Amino acid sequence: MLQPLMHVLSSKRIILASGSPRRRELLSKYGLEFDVEPSLYDEGSLKAENFTSPADFAEQLAYEKAAEVVRRMDRSIDAPELVIGADTVVTLDGHVYGKPVDKQDAFNMISKFSGRTHHVYTGVAVLRRLQYGRWATDRFAEVTAVHMDTLPADVIHSYVNTSEPMDKAGGYGIQAMGGTFISGIEGDYYNVVGLPIHRLCKLLYRLYGSKDGSSER
Amino acid sequence: MLQPLMHVLSSKRIILASGSPRRRELLSKYGLEFDVEPSLYDEGSLKAENFTSPADFAEQLAYEKAAEVVRRMDRSIDAPELVIGADTVVTLDGHVYGKPVDKQDAFNMISKFSGRTHHVYTGVAVLRRLQYGRWATDRFAEVTAVHMDTLPADVIHSYVNTSEPMDKAGGYGIQAMGGTFISGIEGDYYNVVGLPIHRLCKLLYRLYGSKDGSSER
Repeated sequence: MLQPLMHVLSSKRIILASGSPRRRELLSKYGLEFDVEPSLYDEGSLKAENFTSPADFAEQLAYEKAAEVVRRMDRSIDAPELVIGADTVVTLDGHVYGKPVDKQDAFNMISKFSGRTHHVYTGVAVLRRLQYGRWATDRFAEVTAVHMDTLPADVIHSYVNTSEPMDKAGGYGIQAMGGTFISGIEGDYYNVVGLPIHRLCKLLYRLYGSKDGSSER
Repeated sequence: MLQPLMHVLSSKRIILASGSPRRRELLSKYGLEFDVEPSLYDEGSLKAENFTSPADFAEQLAYEKAAEVVRRMDRSIDAPELVIGADTVVTLDGHVYGKPVDKQDAFNMISKFSGRTHHVYTGVAVLRRLQYGRWATDRFAEVTAVHMDTLPADVIHSYVNTSEPMDKAGGYGIQAMGGTFISGIEGDYYNVVGLPIHRLCKLLYRLYGSKDGSSER
């Protein structure tokens, strides 16, 4: 979806304001050139319970992460023109799950998800530099329902003893061994990985594609 | 899901009877050791219209591909013990789509899928060597519904001019640039890539996991 925009996008300095190796790897697949600048925003500043929905919470976190990078880099000699922030949270029964704190926490999370449907929300914020030091923001959150099969205890035990669960919201990686647990999803798979690629690319196309759908070459 | 079985599976000679680089890459992710032996079965021998459903068609193709490899290798010095066959077809409006024959065909396929929901069927056959030269077969087909967004003509044109569509059923790769076209799916994502990992692993767990769910270590 991005190929017709490449002549525009390749002239811009783009920053992915996330340290997640999955997001970097994903975004790299589409030919986009960008640098990674993990946000220094303290995620603990926002509490899920102060938001009306997990979608709003994830979207605001994505915005704050991108906005921190903009504030920090805006006056630098290599100031970015486009900053993309993202944040992923997992919910089940009204509870919001982030990354597990230890193996036991990961075991508990996966045991709760086993045989159930949880929801993965990824918020995205795209900040664009305009003229005169102003910035424009586009933001959204995407939700995907994830059906995890009922897992035997030995499967969860073996999994938690790999290093895979620890740095991932919900304690599993759908793009890795954790993918074997998932009987199906409803929504964008990449949203579960951590970046809703379709909606992000559609937004970029809307912002940078030509009006008649036939971009200049 | 396979970790508790690894001590059993690692002692077996496993063959993936498919030349698809996506299937090889996928299966490699889970720590399974296997060799690739593309089937010489002539896929043109079976016609979709002779089957009651695309699921039956894909399942039979998967079986024939695996069975050909078993016949060819069964008496060799390094005869396999487990042979996995798979085949993927795409359907829309009762029509079955395979790989595009040229760029125009790919353009036509994607134009038809644009703004619509198509279905991806992957058939899987797992052939296991028993005693006395007998073989046991387990087989199934998995379906995933895929929602493709309405695509601007310049996006389809640019995509078809990459090499991506040509060797893929349906003319796009959800795991690559084609993933940006997909607003959502219902079912197993890996089934769309070409191998329904969850059901395959569940089958292997049923075949080789211990009865009480706590495999020996």
